[in-house]
Formats: sequence, C-alpha cells, structure tokens
Amino acid sequence: MASSFGNHLKITIFGQSHSQAIGVTVEGLPVGEHVDTEVLQAFLARRAPGGNLATSRKEPDVPEILCGLHNGVTCGTPLTAIIRNTNTRSADYAAMADFPRPGHADYPAEVKFGGWQDKAGGGHFSGRLTAPLCIAGGIAAQILARRGVEIGAHIAEIGGVRDDRFDAVSIAPDTFSALVEKAFPTLSDSAGKEMQARILAAKTEGNSVGGVIECAAVGLPAGLGDPMFDGMENRIAGLVFGIPAVKGLEFGSGFDAARMSGAEHNDPYISTPEGIRTVSNHHGGILGGITSGMPLIFRAAIKPTPSIAMEQDTVSLSRLEAAKLRVVGRHDPCIVPRAVPCMEAALAVAILDAWCEADI
Amino acid sequence: MASSFGNHLKITIFGQSHSQAIGVTVEGLPVGEHVDTEVLQAFLARRAPGGNLATSRKEPDVPEILCGLHNGVTCGTPLTAIIRNTNTRSADYAAMADFPRPGHADYPAEVKFGGWQDKAGGGHFSGRLTAPLCIAGGIAAQILARRGVEIGAHIAEIGGVRDDRFDAVSIAPDTFSALVEKAFPTLSDSAGKEMQARILAAKTEGNSVGGVIECAAVGLPAGLGDPMFDGMENRIAGLVFGIPAVKGLEFGSGFDAARMSGAEHNDPYISTPEGIRTVSNHHGGILGGITSGMPLIFRAAIKPTPSIAMEQDTVSLSRLEAAKLRVVGRHDPCIVPRAVPCMEAALAVAILDAWCEADI
Amino acid sequence: MASSFGNHLKITIFGQSHSQAIGVTVEGLPVGEHVDTEVLQAFLARRAPGGNLATSRKEPDVPEILCGLHNGVTCGTPLTAIIRNTNTRSADYAAMADFPRPGHADYPAEVKFGGWQDKAGGGHFSGRLTAPLCIAGGIAAQILARRGVEIGAHIAEIGGVRDDRFDAVSIAPDTFSALVEKAFPTLSDSAGKEMQARILAAKTEGNSVGGVIECAAVGLPAGLGDPMFDGMENRIAGLVFGIPAVKGLEFGSGFDAARMSGAEHNDPYISTPEGIRTVSNHHGGILGGITSGMPLIFRAAIKPTPSIAMEQDTVSLSRLEAAKLRVVGRHDPCIVPRAVPCMEAALAVAILDAWCEADI
Amino acid sequence: MASSFGNHLKITIFGQSHSQAIGVTVEGLPVGEHVDTEVLQAFLARRAPGGNLATSRKEPDVPEILCGLHNGVTCGTPLTAIIRNTNTRSADYAAMADFPRPGHADYPAEVKFGGWQDKAGGGHFSGRLTAPLCIAGGIAAQILARRGVEIGAHIAEIGGVRDDRFDAVSIAPDTFSALVEKAFPTLSDSAGKEMQARILAAKTEGNSVGGVIECAAVGLPAGLGDPMFDGMENRIAGLVFGIPAVKGLEFGSGFDAARMSGAEHNDPYISTPEGIRTVSNHHGGILGGITSGMPLIFRAAIKPTPSIAMEQDTVSLSRLEAAKLRVVGRHDPCIVPRAVPCMEAALAVAILDAWCEADI
Repeated sequence: MASSFGNHLKITIFGQSHSQAIGVTVEGLPVGEHVDTEVLQAFLARRAPGGNLATSRKEPDVPEILCGLHNGVTCGTPLTAIIRNTNTRSADYAAMADFPRPGHADYPAEVKFGGWQDKAGGGHFSGRLTAPLCIAGGIAAQILARRGVEIGAHIAEIGGVRDDRFDAVSIAPDTFSALVEKAFPTLSDSAGKEMQARILAAKTEGNSVGGVIECAAVGLPAGLGDPMFDGMENRIAGLVFGIPAVKGLEFGSGFDAARMSGAEHNDPYISTPEGIRTVSNHHGGILGGITSGMPLIFRAAIKPTPSIAMEQDTVSLSRLEAAKLRVVGRHDPCIVPRAVPCMEAALAVAILDAWCEADI
Repeated sequence: MASSFGNHLKITIFGQSHSQAIGVTVEGLPVGEHVDTEVLQAFLARRAPGGNLATSRKEPDVPEILCGLHNGVTCGTPLTAIIRNTNTRSADYAAMADFPRPGHADYPAEVKFGGWQDKAGGGHFSGRLTAPLCIAGGIAAQILARRGVEIGAHIAEIGGVRDDRFDAVSIAPDTFSALVEKAFPTLSDSAGKEMQARILAAKTEGNSVGGVIECAAVGLPAGLGDPMFDGMENRIAGLVFGIPAVKGLEFGSGFDAARMSGAEHNDPYISTPEGIRTVSNHHGGILGGITSGMPLIFRAAIKPTPSIAMEQDTVSLSRLEAAKLRVVGRHDPCIVPRAVPCMEAALAVAILDAWCEADI
Repeated sequence: MASSFGNHLKITIFGQSHSQAIGVTVEGLPVGEHVDTEVLQAFLARRAPGGNLATSRKEPDVPEILCGLHNGVTCGTPLTAIIRNTNTRSADYAAMADFPRPGHADYPAEVKFGGWQDKAGGGHFSGRLTAPLCIAGGIAAQILARRGVEIGAHIAEIGGVRDDRFDAVSIAPDTFSALVEKAFPTLSDSAGKEMQARILAAKTEGNSVGGVIECAAVGLPAGLGDPMFDGMENRIAGLVFGIPAVKGLEFGSGFDAARMSGAEHNDPYISTPEGIRTVSNHHGGILGGITSGMPLIFRAAIKPTPSIAMEQDTVSLSRLEAAKLRVVGRHDPCIVPRAVPCMEAALAVAILDAWCEADI
Repeated sequence: MASSFGNHLKITIFGQSHSQAIGVTVEGLPVGEHVDTEVLQAFLARRAPGGNLATSRKEPDVPEILCGLHNGVTCGTPLTAIIRNTNTRSADYAAMADFPRPGHADYPAEVKFGGWQDKAGGGHFSGRLTAPLCIAGGIAAQILARRGVEIGAHIAEIGGVRDDRFDAVSIAPDTFSALVEKAFPTLSDSAGKEMQARILAAKTEGNSVGGVIECAAVGLPAGLGDPMFDGMENRIAGLVFGIPAVKGLEFGSGFDAARMSGAEHNDPYISTPEGIRTVSNHHGGILGGITSGMPLIFRAAIKPTPSIAMEQDTVSLSRLEAAKLRVVGRHDPCIVPRAVPCMEAALAVAILDAWCEADI
C-alpha cells in the first residue's frame, strides 16, 4: 500500500494536490490522549508557504478532524483529519501534460498509470501531501512529549552553506524551542542569513537550491525498535523517503562513519546517575536498530526544487520529439525550510509506532 | 515484524548466529521459475568469509532448500532454505555477557529483551543473518535476469580511499560480470590495492575500517514502485538498513544533490530509439519513488567493524561501574567486501517485490 | 489494524456513529475505472433506513468523494469518501453510559478502552460503519461487473421463516437484478411476506429478530484466492465478521456438509463448451481457498438486534450492582434487510482484492 | 501472503506434503517463555495419524526447533521449527495428475499455478500442513496457560451423530483435561461410540464422513480483540478457514441465534465476586469483536474427506473429456478427530496475537 505506513501506529495518507481534499487516517493511537488543536495548528503553520523565500500560494492548511476523538481525546477509533484544497490553478498544468518536467515524477507516473493519473499540481506526488504527514506527526509529537520525548530539527545546509550541528551527546533543553521561534531555523544565525541569500539568488535567476536537514529526538528510553527490518533506521527511512525530494539519509556519523576506524567510531559506555550512556554518539542513538537512550539523530538530503522558471529540455510524449519547457506556476526556490517540520513529523510517527509496539 | 519484509514478494529471515540453523522463507515468488542452485551457491560464496582480509571462521554456507520447489522449479508455495550453523565458539561470548561491546547492539538488546536474548555471536543481530538475505536475493536476481534486469555492486570507498563511480547514464554491459570475477570488487584496481592495504594496516593494529558500497541495476522498465511510502527508495532502504553496520544511504547524486541547483540537478529528457531517456542521471533512476528506466543507483555507508582487538572502555551491567573490554574471537577488520553481495541481494528483493506488484 | 482490510485492494474505515463524519479510504483500485456515483448512491440506498420495518432515523448517506478520482475515473491514488453525520441524538446514550446494554459491545469496550471510548450511537461499533463498507464494495462491484462478475444476495431466513435458496449450479442471469428491485429481497414473495410479519410482531412487543443472508457471485474465473490463510473463505470471513451482529458463516453446503458422505458431497467434474464445471456445487465455488469457476456462495447468520425496548437486566459499572435497563432511541427490530447490501459489498471487496493479486 | 497470519504474533507456514520438510516460523513470541518440547510433542501426537479410524500412514511428526530459543526459552528472535517429510509415496499421485479429484483443490490449483504446482500428496493444500499450525498453537497454548487461559475442544458431531455441548456459562475445570485423555474426544462416550461406528461403516464402503468440532477457551480477560476487521471472530476465522475441509464457522449460538429473538439472545449482565459476568452466553464470549470474559466458544463444520476409494466422475484436463477416477493411496475416512487439536491451535494463536497487541 503506497500510502500507508506503520505496524501498531498506522497512518494512511490520501489526496491529490488539486482534489477536493487531502488528509490522513491514523490508526492505533494510544487512547485517552488529548489532542491540542492549537498546538497542532501551530505545527502545521511551520510547513505552510509564506514569506519571500517561498511560493506565493495561499494554503491555510486548517485541518478538520472528522473522527477519532471524543471530547477532544483519543477514544480508540481511527483518527481522520482532512484539509480542503482551495486556490488551485489546474490550468497551469494542463498545458504541460504532454511535456514531462525534468526532476518530477511526470514521466514515470505516466508510464505507471497509463496516463490516468491526476497531473494537476503533481497529484499524489505533490509536496502538499506532506501536510497530512504533519497532522499525524504533530499529534504523535504531542503524545511523545507527555512521555518525555522532545523532537526538533534545523536546516543543516542549503546551497553549500553549512549550519552548526546538534551536540550529539547532550542537546541543550531549549535548543528545539529556540529553533521553533525562528522564521528560518538554523543554529547559527549568520549561516542562516547566508543560506537565505543563496535562496533569493536562485529565485532571482529562476533557479532553485537544495539542502540538508538535521533532525533529533531526546528523552528516548533505550530499547525501542526491532532487529533487522523493523529497526529504527528502517522505520524512519520508510517515512523520510516518502517525503518528496529526499535523496539521502544518514544516522549518527552516517557517511563520515565510513571514513573512521573502529577505535574512533565505537562509542564507549559509561555509568551515570541517569543510567548507562555513551561518551560520544557516533551511533546516533541507534544500535542494531534499537534505541540506546542517547539522542537519536539523522540527516536527510533534499534535492533542489525541480520546478524552475528557466527553460529546460524535455520531450513531447505524444510526438516523441525534443521540446523546450518552461515551468509556469508558483514554486518554492527551496523547499528545505518547509520540509523541517515534515522531518520532525516523520520521526515522531516512527518513534510512537515503535513505542506502542514495545509496550513501554 | 522485525524479520519480515515485502508486499507481494515477502521474505522472513530467522535464526541466531549460534542456533541450530539460520534461514529464510520467501513467499510470493513467481511460479515456474527454475532456481539454479550452483549459481545461488556461487552468489553466496561472495559473502562467505575467507582470505587474509577476513575472519578465519569457516562458514560453508551451503543452503538446503526445504520446500517451495518442485523438480527445481518454483511451484507457488513458500520457499524455505536453511543453513546449518557449525564451528561456533559460544564460549568466546559468555565471558563478555556483562560487558556491552561498544558499537554493538548488546546494551540496547539487553534492555529490550530483559536479558533473555541469545548473545552468542551477536544472536539475531549477527552479520551472519545476511546469508539468508543473500539466498532470497540470489534467487530474486536469477528471476530478474530472465526479465533483462542485471544487478551489480562495487566497493566505492574504504578507509577514505575512493574507487571510481559507475557511469550513471550507461553502465557498460560487462561491468558487473567483471566485478564478480574480482576477489576484491573495485572498478579501479589501483584503488582496490590501496584499500586492501588500509584494511591490513587496521588488522595489524587490532583496529577496523568502514567504507561505502555502490550498487546498481540496469535493464529496468520505467514504472516500478509506488508513490509515497512504497517508493523504490523506501523499499530499498527498508532492506538495506536491515544489513548490520549500514549508517547511511543515498540515491543518484544523493547528498551531493543538496549542493546542486535545480538547473544542474534536473535531468533533461531525450527521445531515443530505445525509448525516452534522460541525458544525465542525477535522479539515480527513481523519480517520485518510481523507476524512470535509467540505471537505478544507490550508495550505502558502512561503519567500521565494531569488534576490534584493542582494549575499550565499557561498563559492567551488573555492577554499574567502569570496566575495560577486549573483544576476543575472530572478526573481520572490514566487512565491506563481504557486504557487496548483500547490497545486490537487497536490491534484487526490492525490485522483484515491486515488479510482482506492478504486474509487468 | 482493526479498521483496515486487504492485501492489494486495501480499505480503511473510519468514524464513529456520532462523529463529524464516517468514511473509507480504498487503496489499490485498478486505474482507469469510471466510478458511477448514481449507481453507487443507489447501492447505498439499499442499506439506508426507511420503511415501517426499520428505524425512523433519517440517514441520507450521501457520500462525498474527496480524492482518488480524476474526471470521475480512478487515477492510481487512494480513494477517500466520507458521509457527514447528522440527525444524531447523543443524549439518548448519555443516560445509559453506566449500564452496559446486553448484546452490545458496551462492556468489553469499556474494559478495553478504559472508559475513553465514544459511546454515543455505539461509536465505532455502530452498524452505521457499514455505510463506508458499502461505498468500497459498491465501487468494487462496478469494477467487477466490467469483468463479467455479478454479485447478489437475498434474505434466506428471518425469525425462523426460510426463503428458497439460490440454484447453486446455475443462478439465472436476472436473479440478482430482480432481487434489487424488491423492497424486501427474498426469492419467494410469500416467504418474504411472512418474514415481514414476524418483524412487525417483534417490533410491536418491543423485541427483535435475527436471520440469515445468502450471498453469491457468478461469472468468476477459476484460480482466484490463495492457499491457507488468504483463501477466499478467509478473506470473505475477515470482512463479513466485521459486519456487526454476524455470528456465523458457511460456504457451499456449509454445516450441512458435516452431515454428508464424501460420495454425496464431492462435486464431479464435467467438461462443457464453457469450460470445466462441476455437476453439483456443494463446495460453494471454492476449493482449497481458490475459486473453481462455479458460483461462489456463502450464508451469514445475523443475531437479533440487541437494542430492544423491553426492560432488561444489567449492572451499574460504577456501583457494581444489579440494575434494570430500557434501551431508548430508535432501533431496527431486524437489521437483516439492511445487511443485504453489506454482504454484497464484503464479497465484492474480497473478490477484487484477490483479483488484483492474481493479475488476471 | 497466503501462508502468513497475525499482527503482533505472526506465523508463516511453509512446506509441501512431499517436500524435504514442512515447518513454521513464529515471530513476536513474548520473551522469557520456556517451551516444553515434551508437552509440545504430546500436543502434536493428538493430530498424528494412527488407530483403525485413521490412515495407515506413519508420520512421526517430531519437530526440530532450529532457532528462536536460548537454553529452551524464547529469546526475542523468530522461532522456526521443521518436521522432515518421510514415508511419502508420490507415485500414488503421479497417475492422477491429469484427473482432478472431486472435492480437492487439484483443478483450481491447476488453473492458478499453470500446472507448476507440486501435486504430490496435495502439495501446499495437504492436511499435513496443519502440523506446523499445531507447533505454533501448541507453543502459544503453553504461554497462555501461564496466563490462566485454558483451551480445549471436542468432536461435537460426526456423520449426523451429535455429542453434548460445552456448558457455555461455566465449563468445568477438568473438562479439557478429561477430553485430552480420550482416544476419541467426545463429552458423551455413547455418542463417541456411535460416531466411531459411522466412521468404520464409511471406511468399509470406501466412503467418508464429515463432522463438527466445538472449541473453547476459558480464563480469558475481557478486552481482547479489536473492532471491525481485527475482532476475535475475524482473527479466529482467518486461521480456522486455513484448515483444510472447514466449510462453516459459528460463534456462541451461531446460526441458532438467527432463529432467536433479542429478548432470548441478549445475555443479561450480573455482578459477581469474580467480576462482571453474563447469566447466559449466547454471545460466545465475544461482543463487538472483543472478549467479554465469558468462555469463548466456536464450532467449525468439516466436510467429509474428499479422498474416497469409490469410483468418481471427473475429466481429463489434457483431453477435456469425461473420465472415471478411483483415488488410491491411504486416506482418513474422517479427518474430524485429527482436526481437534488443529482447532485448539488456531484458537491459541488468535488469542495470543490479540493478547500481545492488547499489552495486558
């Protein structure tokens, strides 16, 4: 099922960019959990477009919870929330139907769905479908917070400009809350300014840039996740690669670990008043697919927005001949900032799913 | 289910490093497919230990197919194959039970399984469990080859030494077969020699090194895979992160894509006699989770073998105090070479699963 | 996942009797299939309350399809349809919260959900949740009809009065269409009249009656379904037992088969111009979990509506002492007639799921 | 996946009647549970052939546990057990390949698997595959017994002769143990004698008879199971219909409930020192798919053994013309007695799966 994920906590995302509505059904939520809709709304607002760095589309993204709650509390039934689609301009896309956009799913989808798919706005492939993921993740995050787990993320890199990294061993308590306050969530404000400059430069020339997001969870107990195919890495990857434009994912030291020796990479154990910990955290809080109790850290690589105003080479699917394409419509020169809460949402869903299975 | 993977083609891996046997059950194989046991044996031999670069353990790894075939041909029932465990020296591990090995799953597993897990040889977390994966993948690869799909992989990096990369646009037909012939599969023999020197150096000092493997599939039709959570990236990640020591995964340009502009990264389409192709292949053969018909390419980062002879700091789980640990037993100073066929196996299983679902 | 069903065609039902809305998401529908909303509406109307035999509640049951279609045709994305809940009188239930209704899920749900569940109207246990099942089944039936498969059902028994049975070997082509035309779908009109009399008698005394529904599918190819746990019986049972009040299910001769000898029960094969058939059809069109090409026939036993006006004995959950209960609210004295399309819907979903997996 | 079942506790059955071996993998077993192999062996012995009422085949059915245990205790990894196939006489079946046996899966399987299936001994459809189910169920039953849940079953009917029924409200503690002691498990010995006479009579004339098995579980807590598609009925049905020859299944009053009024069928609640109970138990211990704490009771209808010595009419698949068939080989004139432990096994697996999910 392409649009479902999870074992105990199961999410099913539905909708096309220009259908009547998009939404998500979440099965297996713990019962008796209050869902704070204002907090959820604030979480969703972080991925909504806006500002001069983003598209000029208006997406209120106000979810309507159709069921799953009783007096605002989870009652043991599936929770379904929808967001109505408005302000869509399908006409922008009709003209391009015969010319697959480079970097988009247009061509593979054309082959797979035999021309039946809904191309408007990217259909089911639209970044808009991350809004339902954020609804599920935003609710999961509220439930995890009551269990002492906090999740946060920052823009680690854009257009080659790098931000500082999280302190893998001991992330300061207020780090996440400080990031949420920022319009452009980086640890280093100077790095953030430079990144924004790169984005505006790309926008000016009708181009786009990609980047990297670093996401972490603290307060996790040891013992979450399973060996082999249900390890925390597998679960997180299963969700993160479902976010459009993600082309890479690494945990802890990730690809750098490939350049280290065992003596450098192995994290020695120490016994502390808070319990057993590791001195360093190259493992990113996961060993054998199971949480170690140290901060869980991953980074996701996001490719540059494929929708650019510059003219591109493509083909006519009907005439099988070369063609020029200029993607009209309103697009983000960089979707990295809006993808930040999506990563947090993916991590929250993955953790709560493993948590419910582990019966902690 | 920690040990199961797949939608239509489903594999379930069982066994501990020192149990009576390890094995795999594969459900959903296409019927009427001959399984060449000699070719399968040769495939498994590539991950078997041996040579001065690897452990001195003897693992014949001769699978016994218990069912699923009729006269050597798949007959529509689950195929189960097992490998008997022999030459195990559990005593090596008994002494370490109270001292979690840095970089291993010992501690998280202790917490998760409350001390009931089988620690000998790493139990269910052992790299030995990749043998059953190779059985499933080796069979899947035989079936895919009949459909024109070839899979191959090479060591892209070890200890900081880098090999050349696959030609992402047009991998030469004999590239894969040439790699299989090599005892140390790199595209550049000189790079290979240098990597082997790094491994021996690490072995000499009781240390270990990690690396990167690049894996690819050619001959794929466009249209395999699904949007969102069943995309080819999600499927491949679900299997690859089940291979011990993998800490990172990237597709196409991967993390480099985060440093490119849309104009650089977008792969223009062209119409060729063989069909629609892209001029470049930064997307790694996958767009929107669906194959584009271009070579599918991914790279996996493998951490250095955590089992090293050098003395390490750990704690006594019973006395909760600092302790020194020296990991005895026979271990690979670098498991990257043996992980090469595992990556091919993971890719073969992921592709055949998507293929069966797509009814091509 | 309590609310999900299916392998390739997957349905997820959501909603409570008195939540904002109820609905269903259907994943895996074949692409390029037109969904006739008028035909769907007519199908849903068959389970809607009305008439002097049913509750006086008004349930327009007009589904709104939120996504999954493009210009009215399935486009490869999940299809989600919802029905708004209106005309609910939760107050009827508030008073009964402390007194579990005999024959209802009140008490087990209270234990399971720790008092958090939404009791109004039966919450997630309400027969109202069969409306989304009928949406999914109604759509599946339209798709199957284009493949030559017709599905129908009739009231086989109510309050001890029995209708004739389908001709298991060759159901007349117009049998199903004739049943759909009837306000009270029985093969024998006289039996139907008697059943209705029993229902009205029960209603008059504030009591209720149960019954049996016989459901069949014709035009099925041989070869659908799988051995063991994905057999057609397993799939159908998985859905039918999800319909409230079903307490029994039998295929072909069912329980009567237990009283027959092998010589009587075995259905001899014959070769006909239409292909291989069986002379009799005690097997109900399924052998080894796989369709034989003969009509697929099952019967489901439905218990009498537990909500009756007569006073009943129960307990006070808070005071743990005996109590008297009189169930107020508007209830069907017999839900069998409204369950007829639900059985057809369950069968349609089970068949299309197996069909999609079999790649016929 | 035709051969897999379960959510948290997952079983995968593999093997053909005449393959090297048959077996089962059980994932998700609680850790720290001792598996008593002697008790397991005794449980399996109950389904093994023997006696003058059964086939003369010799099936030692001695399972070898390959993995999943550490020092005889579940250790958190999948448990796989196999039984070697011996004493098979495939030649008996080769001759019949072209002539589908009435009442068997031969023809549907031929169509589904295009002639590739392993016909010997019924292949994957053989009753022999219930041995692995009994291994999984026997282990589950041991774990449930430690939680106060006892499971038992008896032959309720054979060839039209009926046994007494379990006391649905309070099954005497020693009822199950007494049944296990009997070579022919009926509550009434006189009924048992008559049934055996019917079986021998059928055997004498080369015919066969079917019957009904009643199975129950006591000591269950209220609250197990889920609404809709994961209700206890759905779970049990999903397993029971995987047992060859089962054509019907009913819970509590089952089909009789269809003839009762609501006032008769509703089970009034009472408060007892042991907790809330119902005065009667027409609901069979399940309401809304969830256990009520009362004995869980179901009955399964088993068709007469299709393999009979009498000559039968069939067709030649190759020549598409009428043919006569006489099924040679050794067959049970009635498989009901041997199916008794299979029903207990199915119930044990279904309950433990729900139990693990409910985190009781």
